[in-house]
Amino acid sequence: MTPEAFRSAGHALIDWIADYRAQVADRPVRAQVAPGDIRRQMAATPPDAPIAFDELLTALERVVVPGVTQVQHPMHFGWFPSNAALSAVLGDIACSGLGTLGISWESCPALTEVEEAVCDWMRQLAGLSDAWQGTIHDTASTACLTSLLVARERRSEYSEFAGGLQMLDRPLTVYASDQAHSSVVKAALLAGFGHDNLRLVASDPATRALSPDALEQAIEADLAAGRVPAAVVASLGTTGVTAFDPLPDIVRIAQRHDCWTHVDAAMAGSAMLLPECRPLFDGIEGADAISWNPHKWIGTILDTSLFYVRDPLTLNRVMSTNPSYLQSAEDGDVTQYRDWGIPLGRRFRALKLWFQLALDGPEAIRARLRRDLDNARWLEREVAQATHWRVVAPRTLQTVCIRHEPPGIAGEDLDRHTLAWLRRVNRSGRAFLSPAQLDGRWFVRVSIGVESTTRAHVERLWRILRDSAEEAQ
Amino acid sequence: MTPEAFRSAGHALIDWIADYRAQVADRPVRAQVAPGDIRRQMAATPPDAPIAFDELLTALERVVVPGVTQVQHPMHFGWFPSNAALSAVLGDIACSGLGTLGISWESCPALTEVEEAVCDWMRQLAGLSDAWQGTIHDTASTACLTSLLVARERRSEYSEFAGGLQMLDRPLTVYASDQAHSSVVKAALLAGFGHDNLRLVASDPATRALSPDALEQAIEADLAAGRVPAAVVASLGTTGVTAFDPLPDIVRIAQRHDCWTHVDAAMAGSAMLLPECRPLFDGIEGADAISWNPHKWIGTILDTSLFYVRDPLTLNRVMSTNPSYLQSAEDGDVTQYRDWGIPLGRRFRALKLWFQLALDGPEAIRARLRRDLDNARWLEREVAQATHWRVVAPRTLQTVCIRHEPPGIAGEDLDRHTLAWLRRVNRSGRAFLSPAQLDGRWFVRVSIGVESTTRAHVERLWRILRDSAEEAQ
Repeated sequence: MTPEAFRSAGHALIDWIADYRAQVADRPVRAQVAPGDIRRQMAATPPDAPIAFDELLTALERVVVPGVTQVQHPMHFGWFPSNAALSAVLGDIACSGLGTLGISWESCPALTEVEEAVCDWMRQLAGLSDAWQGTIHDTASTACLTSLLVARERRSEYSEFAGGLQMLDRPLTVYASDQAHSSVVKAALLAGFGHDNLRLVASDPATRALSPDALEQAIEADLAAGRVPAAVVASLGTTGVTAFDPLPDIVRIAQRHDCWTHVDAAMAGSAMLLPECRPLFDGIEGADAISWNPHKWIGTILDTSLFYVRDPLTLNRVMSTNPSYLQSAEDGDVTQYRDWGIPLGRRFRALKLWFQLALDGPEAIRARLRRDLDNARWLEREVAQATHWRVVAPRTLQTVCIRHEPPGIAGEDLDRHTLAWLRRVNRSGRAFLSPAQLDGRWFVRVSIGVESTTRAHVERLWRILRDSAEEAQ
Repeated sequence: MTPEAFRSAGHALIDWIADYRAQVADRPVRAQVAPGDIRRQMAATPPDAPIAFDELLTALERVVVPGVTQVQHPMHFGWFPSNAALSAVLGDIACSGLGTLGISWESCPALTEVEEAVCDWMRQLAGLSDAWQGTIHDTASTACLTSLLVARERRSEYSEFAGGLQMLDRPLTVYASDQAHSSVVKAALLAGFGHDNLRLVASDPATRALSPDALEQAIEADLAAGRVPAAVVASLGTTGVTAFDPLPDIVRIAQRHDCWTHVDAAMAGSAMLLPECRPLFDGIEGADAISWNPHKWIGTILDTSLFYVRDPLTLNRVMSTNPSYLQSAEDGDVTQYRDWGIPLGRRFRALKLWFQLALDGPEAIRARLRRDLDNARWLEREVAQATHWRVVAPRTLQTVCIRHEPPGIAGEDLDRHTLAWLRRVNRSGRAFLSPAQLDGRWFVRVSIGVESTTRAHVERLWRILRDSAEEAQ
């Protein structure tokens, strides 16, 4: 495609996106399709002759859009916010348009140095000391795996360069709360520790935060059995109920046992931008690694997962490759981000953060986060005051965990009731929420934080929830 | 940012990109900056107040562009092609603009089902049987790590769900050619096998392809020592000299020893689109996994790395997570791509492939690949006929490996000569190539395949190379 053909198609696409975003609230939130509906509309064989751009745009509208669950919809309250701020979209377009290649500093010096700069800006905005250096991973899953690989190597005297993890005499162990995200479990298993060496330590029944006493006991038991504690993952803002593990206690325990501390603040890390929330992160300077996804609440678009470490040399030692075909005269004087994670090739993702910070400004981002917290506080009060409704876990940030508990319904009947009214809401397309389990019982997470969600939307949601749950009575 | 502000800024950005791409040949190929030059132009502290889009575009032009090594430049012959076809850029823009979230089928049914469809289209174009099912990873590094993790679990009776790799009695071993890409070594080390259990088997001195006899001997030696062969990585198109490991032999040996075969065809996989090149891939149906990057030669933009497996259930078993907060009524009836790789969240990357195939059409892509092969054949002949020049390894596809060998210069002197003339070329900004080593000696890789590179550019390159190397005599 020539630059001129791109210019013409690009303008049409920009208009399409602007219209799409302006009208997102008119669409059903949850995709109203059944499994296979989209696939059936795609040709079974590859295109043979080129089609005009208008035709493709029509297919995008007709085939793809009905199959999109609208996470940018103001009535989307599912999972965690996955905002795609249009300022960051512009940065992503610049990344695509430039068509750069990140495999070494030499392959695009700007990609490396702008990433260094914006990671440092985000560090400052988060109130982290200058002991931290950052990079951008795709997701917190990858960041957690990277972090546990470093922990594994650090505690096994760099077994990767010898017999590997499989040659250790004494098994390494990993610790996290039983509320830790599934990606933490996945990372520990993929890193080769094995499920038997992963301790999902009991959380406090009231706060759902990891219990330091339980952590200490688990570590002591492993030490007594001849095992080697290697890493603790502290969850700041769990996926279920946004619980904050007690970081000062965890860091103290981890340091005493020479464990690596990884902080998983994938969603909640954005709250570091608010001074009033910053105490939730006390103790973070004692950790070894932090992952935080601006692509969630802040809205820098997938895939923008910040990963900070205090000791890049240890990270680089584990991740480094230096084949002849990637060497250049500047090696040694520059950052080689290929040694900060798993992939060799990287996109110019820093442009998304740069564009968003430059075009929206940090103050507007902070104001929006505060609006969301305020809306969550409002909903929490409403639910707490409503008859037969309950807030099932303390609200810390923008997620309110609720259940409708009509008299005489408990146990599995209550689960059926919860899932039934939730399904009615989601299927209606008027709002979307996702459930989770606590102590084996389903509840509903109201995760507030879409860029376009105002108080009026939260009020409307509350009416919808009441109607849906109470009508069944 | 409102949709209307986005519309206005987006149009300006599209024009900027179209102009940028139209003028890319006027810029120096290699970024003419020193370490720190870009960083110094970035503010030390984050933006405090929003700036206008025009101002940001000016900063992009002033700060970023001089720091870009122009891999879209027709005189770029470095590493491997990293094309960013403007048709695929449009697909990437659609992905960003839609702002979808891929964490489960439910979070965006279209993302999942379009990915299924286009991976199947690419399978058909590559002439692979319908026994293969595909997904899109970010890079071949990640695909290789994923593949070796599956190999590890398959051969350790799924140790991840028990004591992990660290509890095995008999170590697992991995095999690849000594010409395998650095990401293969990295993947084996990160997967925990350990360097002592990785065999970089000798390649044939003439072809640089893995020697089946050496592979067989290495496996037999490990078996005799009580070790358990787990995986063989076959490189189809090595990074150094584009050698093709003998896949039929490798598959036969691997299958006899119940080893997993991973095919790393990151760059060369694109040649599967050409019937005349397809015999190079004979034996591929006997492999277990294939990785192939359309973001290289074909130009689907980073990050578009196809990963095909014959047995998704084994892959899913190793990678699966199913926490309560991601469950939905459709589970079991749909593909959950989170169980096909490491990250949970994924972008709508399939749009890049769809847009490129629909707008350019496979025939135009094939014609371009053939043009590049023809240009490589031309250069190979020229070099082979020129006095004191040598083609140092057989040319298989679009990379020609060359050295200027003036009389009386050998050993380290020859290395110094090679790196000196190469540096002169690269620093001039007129063309860019990257070196590599073979038998401990430097040579220069001429990797042809940028979308805009015509015969005239290759002819010009050859004049530049002769001038640069021979002037030093």
